[in-house]
Amino acid sequence: MSSEDWLRRDRAVVWHGFTQMAHYDEHAPIVVDHAEGHELVDVEGRRYLDAISSLWVTTLGHRVPELDAALARQAGKVAHSTMLGNTNRVVVELAEALAAVVPVDGPHFLFASDGASAVEQALKIAFQYWVNRGDHGRVGYLALGNAYHGDTVGSLSVGDGGFGTSLYDPLRFPVHRTPGYDDPAWLDKALAVLEAHGPELAAVVFEPLVQGAAGMLVAEPTDVGVLGRAAADAGVLVVADEVATGFGRTGRLFASDWCGLRPDLLCLGKGITGGYLPMSATVAAGHVYEAFLGEEPLALFHGHSYGGNALGAAVALEHLRLVHEGGVLDNVGARAAQLARLLAGRIAPHGAVKAVRQRGLMVGVELDPTGRGVRLGRRVCAAAVRRGVLLRPLGDVVVLMPPLTVEAGEVELIVDTLAAALDEVAT
Amino acid sequence: MSSEDWLRRDRAVVWHGFTQMAHYDEHAPIVVDHAEGHELVDVEGRRYLDAISSLWVTTLGHRVPELDAALARQAGKVAHSTMLGNTNRVVVELAEALAAVVPVDGPHFLFASDGASAVEQALKIAFQYWVNRGDHGRVGYLALGNAYHGDTVGSLSVGDGGFGTSLYDPLRFPVHRTPGYDDPAWLDKALAVLEAHGPELAAVVFEPLVQGAAGMLVAEPTDVGVLGRAAADAGVLVVADEVATGFGRTGRLFASDWCGLRPDLLCLGKGITGGYLPMSATVAAGHVYEAFLGEEPLALFHGHSYGGNALGAAVALEHLRLVHEGGVLDNVGARAAQLARLLAGRIAPHGAVKAVRQRGLMVGVELDPTGRGVRLGRRVCAAAVRRGVLLRPLGDVVVLMPPLTVEAGEVELIVDTLAAALDEVAT
Repeated sequence: MSSEDWLRRDRAVVWHGFTQMAHYDEHAPIVVDHAEGHELVDVEGRRYLDAISSLWVTTLGHRVPELDAALARQAGKVAHSTMLGNTNRVVVELAEALAAVVPVDGPHFLFASDGASAVEQALKIAFQYWVNRGDHGRVGYLALGNAYHGDTVGSLSVGDGGFGTSLYDPLRFPVHRTPGYDDPAWLDKALAVLEAHGPELAAVVFEPLVQGAAGMLVAEPTDVGVLGRAAADAGVLVVADEVATGFGRTGRLFASDWCGLRPDLLCLGKGITGGYLPMSATVAAGHVYEAFLGEEPLALFHGHSYGGNALGAAVALEHLRLVHEGGVLDNVGARAAQLARLLAGRIAPHGAVKAVRQRGLMVGVELDPTGRGVRLGRRVCAAAVRRGVLLRPLGDVVVLMPPLTVEAGEVELIVDTLAAALDEVAT
Repeated sequence: MSSEDWLRRDRAVVWHGFTQMAHYDEHAPIVVDHAEGHELVDVEGRRYLDAISSLWVTTLGHRVPELDAALARQAGKVAHSTMLGNTNRVVVELAEALAAVVPVDGPHFLFASDGASAVEQALKIAFQYWVNRGDHGRVGYLALGNAYHGDTVGSLSVGDGGFGTSLYDPLRFPVHRTPGYDDPAWLDKALAVLEAHGPELAAVVFEPLVQGAAGMLVAEPTDVGVLGRAAADAGVLVVADEVATGFGRTGRLFASDWCGLRPDLLCLGKGITGGYLPMSATVAAGHVYEAFLGEEPLALFHGHSYGGNALGAAVALEHLRLVHEGGVLDNVGARAAQLARLLAGRIAPHGAVKAVRQRGLMVGVELDPTGRGVRLGRRVCAAAVRRGVLLRPLGDVVVLMPPLTVEAGEVELIVDTLAAALDEVAT
């Protein structure tokens, strides 16, 4: 059966998020049948280099033998058992392994499945933390311009108005909003709000180092560290959303590591299972966790049915071992440097390119749509897909986010393909 | 290593939802190592009949050979590929199989991982549906007393104030609230709000037939059908949250089937993968989906990274086949009838029991705590756990929710154990 036939079946019953289904075909959608390493293979046998890590989740590629083995081993024990009031051995082992590497003091892990749920958990924990301590005045949040923290109403509330989300304003709770990383004064303005409104704030919420969904806007690590310390000085909890940046994407295990940041609450997702299975986690520092101990009403009334899924935990545990043992972060550093050189030489000078932003293997190539027609980002990415490199834009920003184990030749192929796509679509 | 040692390690790094960790031991927590069929086996080899279906998710038991095989087959193809702007063969096959059985006309499936995310998607779709059609006055929701729809801020907003959630009121958006199924006048009061406020309402949101987390409050199917038709007459969208009731738990595939209900938006989760893997879905009727087609801003700007996970889809697809081919629903009917008889004879007359409520294999045994001390529900369940039957209460309501494939002898064991636990703790 052809891709066209599959897409007809798909359109009849599937609704794809962040996709205008009336224009679905313009994305040059691929119908994945299987995968091998860094390549996705469609139902007609065409191969595509997965240069977006299946939307920022795949770390070591697809069908990693060790991860497949971990999955099979756990399936031979139990797929899932509830973590509400009970526990599972493999989840304890995963939490211990993560505890050794997260940039959080005295970490405790509350698992969920969607990244947005991890953010929701962090927001509610931060809110209740103050209530539990008898401080009922800290009901506000400080969040940044261009922020994206997920699509559920709470995470949407701390997120900014991009992606057509302003229509949901009546459902959102209000926050203090200061500019994002595209404003050189972003730090000063955030510090001013901390100074003026500190005692009213439950938490400051941000994506350390890279505002990903905003188009890979980047901050200086030292600035992010300054924000973290200022929040601590103001007694405001720090919620670091590392759903996108976590697990090596920036060249260190967590973006907070670059920034000297020790958040009170850390949100993890995407890469936590190497891109295999839905899993997310909210990591609470010891002093936060302890504020929930005592009488019954101090408990956190939040829990997702599949939080701490055993299959996901087993894969995540093995994934963490592979990331550490395999020189993966060294590869990210080397390939990021190579990618930066190639982008500076071949892409940045292109007339259709406005800016190139990069931290590790998170790259945004911002196009200049002036005089080049609508949906330029989508057309450039579709041209790359037709050449065998899977890309997906954020508006007019082309995102490059290859797996952490990408090889030198693949980096060259990605840049060559992007250059060709730009020449075709946007000369 | 003993359970006690594992629990020490667990407490050091894991935070369990809906659990006062200072009293964690009072739950008689078990440390699951593996499972066999309907039994969980802890790290010391003790066996527990899983009478809560690992918190309402397990349908056919653990380690089902056919589900394990489906998981392994899909792992040999690809674990996950993004559904944002692209698709995956197995997800199309799953959506087609579900489309044939869901009580929704012209269904389109938007997948996520947490059940709460499916509710959030439904709420946002209902909200945007009216905006897309140019009706900016329909920004409200009608929701029921005692409702539980999940823990994220949007789902928490349509949920009622139970579980200590009122502290989050400043984060919630307001809704029209009418009584829950414990009020004999619940339907009339809901109809009155539909009559008075219909043109301001985007949707009415409810759990058809059973308000599960409220302690298994039950409604008459005909009443639920009347509400659905009245909403349709008032032009208000119907959001049916079947995260708990879906996939056979009530004896039919969906609770809506009992009620003659054809919701505009249906929320699925828990049992969708047979309890193996995190997966949820929002099912939109054709006329709802179509309101999002056209120009770019009409699109739904919502999508979770792992929505449409291929491993979960493969298991869910095979699970659906097993439920249909295996006479599973017939077994639910027979075992539910047996359970009703045994509860009426052995449990309802007990002095510590206030009420027994049941729909299919969803049962709530409400205890009477008067003069019996605090946390009675928890103490009764802990006594059952020590006897080898895993139970977990909702406050002072003991929940019985065995797998759909529970056998007659296991039903007897559950009732015998509950009776003994009641005698021990609550005479």
